[in-house]
Amino acid sequence: MVASDIQIAQEAHLDSILAVAKKVGLEENDLELYGKHKAKLTYDALTRIENQNEAGRLILVTAINPTAAGEGKSTVTVGLGDALTKSGRKTMIALREPSLGPVFGLKGGATGGGYAQVIPMEDINLHFTGDFHAITSANNLLSAMLDNHMQQGNLKQIDGRRIVWKRVVDLNDRALRQVVIGLGGPFQGVPRQDGFDITVASEIMAIICLARDIDDLKTRIGNIVVGYDYARQPITAHDIGAEGALTVLLKDALKPNLVQTLEHTPALVHGGPFANIAHGCNSIMATKSALHLADYTVTEAGFGADLGAEKFLDIKVPQLGKVPDAIVIVATIRALKLHGGANKNNLKEEDVLALEKGFANLAKHIETIEQYGLPFVVAINRFVGDSDAELQALEAWCTANSVSYSLTEVWEKGGNGGLDLADKVVNAIDEHTGTYQPIYNQEQSIEEKVTAIVRKIYGGKSVEFTSKARKQLNEFKQHGWDKYPVCMAKTQYSLSDDATLVGRPEGFVITIREFVPKMGAGFIVALTGDVMTMPGLPKHPAALDMDVDNTGRISGLF
Amino acid sequence: MVASDIQIAQEAHLDSILAVAKKVGLEENDLELYGKHKAKLTYDALTRIENQNEAGRLILVTAINPTAAGEGKSTVTVGLGDALTKSGRKTMIALREPSLGPVFGLKGGATGGGYAQVIPMEDINLHFTGDFHAITSANNLLSAMLDNHMQQGNLKQIDGRRIVWKRVVDLNDRALRQVVIGLGGPFQGVPRQDGFDITVASEIMAIICLARDIDDLKTRIGNIVVGYDYARQPITAHDIGAEGALTVLLKDALKPNLVQTLEHTPALVHGGPFANIAHGCNSIMATKSALHLADYTVTEAGFGADLGAEKFLDIKVPQLGKVPDAIVIVATIRALKLHGGANKNNLKEEDVLALEKGFANLAKHIETIEQYGLPFVVAINRFVGDSDAELQALEAWCTANSVSYSLTEVWEKGGNGGLDLADKVVNAIDEHTGTYQPIYNQEQSIEEKVTAIVRKIYGGKSVEFTSKARKQLNEFKQHGWDKYPVCMAKTQYSLSDDATLVGRPEGFVITIREFVPKMGAGFIVALTGDVMTMPGLPKHPAALDMDVDNTGRISGLF
Repeated sequence: MVASDIQIAQEAHLDSILAVAKKVGLEENDLELYGKHKAKLTYDALTRIENQNEAGRLILVTAINPTAAGEGKSTVTVGLGDALTKSGRKTMIALREPSLGPVFGLKGGATGGGYAQVIPMEDINLHFTGDFHAITSANNLLSAMLDNHMQQGNLKQIDGRRIVWKRVVDLNDRALRQVVIGLGGPFQGVPRQDGFDITVASEIMAIICLARDIDDLKTRIGNIVVGYDYARQPITAHDIGAEGALTVLLKDALKPNLVQTLEHTPALVHGGPFANIAHGCNSIMATKSALHLADYTVTEAGFGADLGAEKFLDIKVPQLGKVPDAIVIVATIRALKLHGGANKNNLKEEDVLALEKGFANLAKHIETIEQYGLPFVVAINRFVGDSDAELQALEAWCTANSVSYSLTEVWEKGGNGGLDLADKVVNAIDEHTGTYQPIYNQEQSIEEKVTAIVRKIYGGKSVEFTSKARKQLNEFKQHGWDKYPVCMAKTQYSLSDDATLVGRPEGFVITIREFVPKMGAGFIVALTGDVMTMPGLPKHPAALDMDVDNTGRISGLF
Repeated sequence: MVASDIQIAQEAHLDSILAVAKKVGLEENDLELYGKHKAKLTYDALTRIENQNEAGRLILVTAINPTAAGEGKSTVTVGLGDALTKSGRKTMIALREPSLGPVFGLKGGATGGGYAQVIPMEDINLHFTGDFHAITSANNLLSAMLDNHMQQGNLKQIDGRRIVWKRVVDLNDRALRQVVIGLGGPFQGVPRQDGFDITVASEIMAIICLARDIDDLKTRIGNIVVGYDYARQPITAHDIGAEGALTVLLKDALKPNLVQTLEHTPALVHGGPFANIAHGCNSIMATKSALHLADYTVTEAGFGADLGAEKFLDIKVPQLGKVPDAIVIVATIRALKLHGGANKNNLKEEDVLALEKGFANLAKHIETIEQYGLPFVVAINRFVGDSDAELQALEAWCTANSVSYSLTEVWEKGGNGGLDLADKVVNAIDEHTGTYQPIYNQEQSIEEKVTAIVRKIYGGKSVEFTSKARKQLNEFKQHGWDKYPVCMAKTQYSLSDDATLVGRPEGFVITIREFVPKMGAGFIVALTGDVMTMPGLPKHPAALDMDVDNTGRISGLF
């Protein structure tokens, strides 16, 4: 019987986090310990390392459009990090923190899998160091202060019909998508229509991932637009005096968390916006720290290159001040078969024909990375059920198209299963001569930016803006918000905004139904199709199969 | 200038938590460290210490009916603990964890004050070890699973109009008291009327405070009544398969947290139900551990003796298996003046006449403790503005009534300010010959229990049950719920259910408007008057005055 992820993680030997930290030159004083195997980096340490090692290389792991179960992007990220370490390179991994939504919903944990995991797996997948809880609390304190402001006389004349700040929970809770609050008469609040998002879609989450230090965090929080007054002028968190208290709640959540892989490579796991409904990257604080501490930093951005990688490059890179030195595009046989028309319930059966049709999806993501002028390697993440014929067909396709690829077996073999990938990635970095080319210019309008993403990244024909979205664009100009980057909210399952259009759809039109200004994060969210900022639980949530015995040992978490 | 609580706490020297633990025989292996100054006790340690020292003495600190700012019950608890330590007695303190609601609302932190505080004060008052966040998440996962069950076919035939399980946030958020959820059509959930409570009122909070171990926790969670089906039969958390996943979220929150006082006395700070809308006591796991580790354990229960002490004695004691050896009743000059009719805005002015009229409130709480047959000492918690004439009047009253009392100055002087109190309490324990006498018998009906509390503890004339409450009592009999203890939800400001009736009101009638069965906690909540299970923010919330600088140093938290 194959061991489950949690079994492997529970049986693993963990090094002391002090020993792990020492590998990249961090001492006990640089850490705030959360038990023996988790720590946060202190602000003193973060400040000190900013001045060391400017030559760290950055490797971004992305993927094709995934299936519902994910394609093992985190697994490949961890395995590649371990392989780089194994081959004598000083390496750190920078991952996002998991959300409780998917953990108890459909997808399970987000700490890698098999022999390529970050540990302690249960802690990281559950409460970890409390960052998401702090973000949830801060987000909701702002809501409480906002509704209280209206209740207590509404000096700022906030228009309850035009509040854009929503409460959040870090769970998949469908029934909170659309609610009415403040019912019960004059002592119970001001009634208004409202809704909850999942915590990973909170602007506070984005801000934690983009802020440089506490002062920047506070300034960004103050800039959050919570709604509009009766004269249609924006009301910010600063206007209602909330940025101090929110920053108090977030002062520890801003510090990157240090853990280790099963093979004891140091990993910073910090921040966790989803890539479909938010910007999908781990924190700048963590990525920057890793770059200063290690020679190679392996990080990932969520879902396919149409979502996470695009946002990493167009939103995160300008603020990080560092372009990735190489990209890894993760592909799996099962997802490629799905894109070739195979039934999602039959993905374990050999189907070379569907597979070959599915290559079109991979081809598009390769073209996307080529447009940015970045070197890349395709990582074929091997699953147990993949047949030899299928693997040969994919390798043949890569060879025929002069695509650098590597069959990775990190799930089964840990770092040893990724040594070839590590060498090919380092090779790609060393031999690269091209120049990085953003797909849009920050000075372009929001329409132009959206259009660039849709045409160049999604391969779509054009963009349609609803009348509401058009009206918003006019208002944004008046508020001076028309030069911000765009954060697309789109299904992860298709290059288009229709989840059912697998493979490489063409000629499609993307509809922008609404924009949401995120002036604290510094981008404008564009909502496409029917993408939801609050997921729902499936018919059989993962929660139903979980248990814990009287000694505290968990089962059913995967 | 007098230093603020946070200034004193920030300037304090903290001992390593390992050194603090050693004082009561705990070794490094017994602890899960959260940084250098916080730790949780491991399950192994908890199991081991259950068999040691059966002779530990328990001192319960309670109070008269408080003012809105509180009367320093936690301060006296901490100061008494330090005084006992100082006088050579092996002592532990067992407090509740603060809720973010009051911290950002009106009251501020709940870690004591002046030179009688538990530290690190900021951590404890904010996220601490994440217990409340875990409770919030577990509570809300149950809600999400419940609404998802209805959405996905509703096999259990849950009646959406008869759901009693509410979502929670750990904030004062008035606008969530009464809401409608599930709006937006068939894909967005089943619409229904709902509401949010504050986390400290969650049944999960009560369960954490009453559970003996993980198995007991899981069983209790399974017993939670979430609502009723169309045949009016109860639906439990077990019926929808939620107890495993919830227990996974709570496995660490069940372990007591170890911190220290400013004078390095070990303190277990764990669990935190409010005493007005919940059972108001810290956890059994913590109290029991302290009893086994120390010779003297000082603990507190929320608000006045009518609320926290009554619940400690009638709900917690039967499950703890240990009756307090002595009671401390905290009284302040300013609260007594309020009970004597002084204006709440003039409490700093000398007013011996109002003070003397206010003694009636203290007298009632003394009688309450005497009814239970327990020895007690009145602790006069000195505030800076108290005049000599006022203090003399109170001392004279105590002497005239043969009441053992002590003027405590722990806020100003730490343990040194409570040495006399410590001696008097130990004396009271040593000289006591009476027998503990519960105020009701567990076999009595719910009506009889409520009536006993109203007559004997509140000093009221009688109880009225609304027709809804009467109907519920009939249903409870059918479900076999008619022998559980009662947890009264009542204003803390008055002995009656009317907050404006200060002093010692007489002849009043208490109205029970509704019952809420808490079959996981093992009690029935009785809602009186217009008490709310979700507080609101005041006109000027404490949050408005909080800030944090770029080094992470917090100000405005008090």
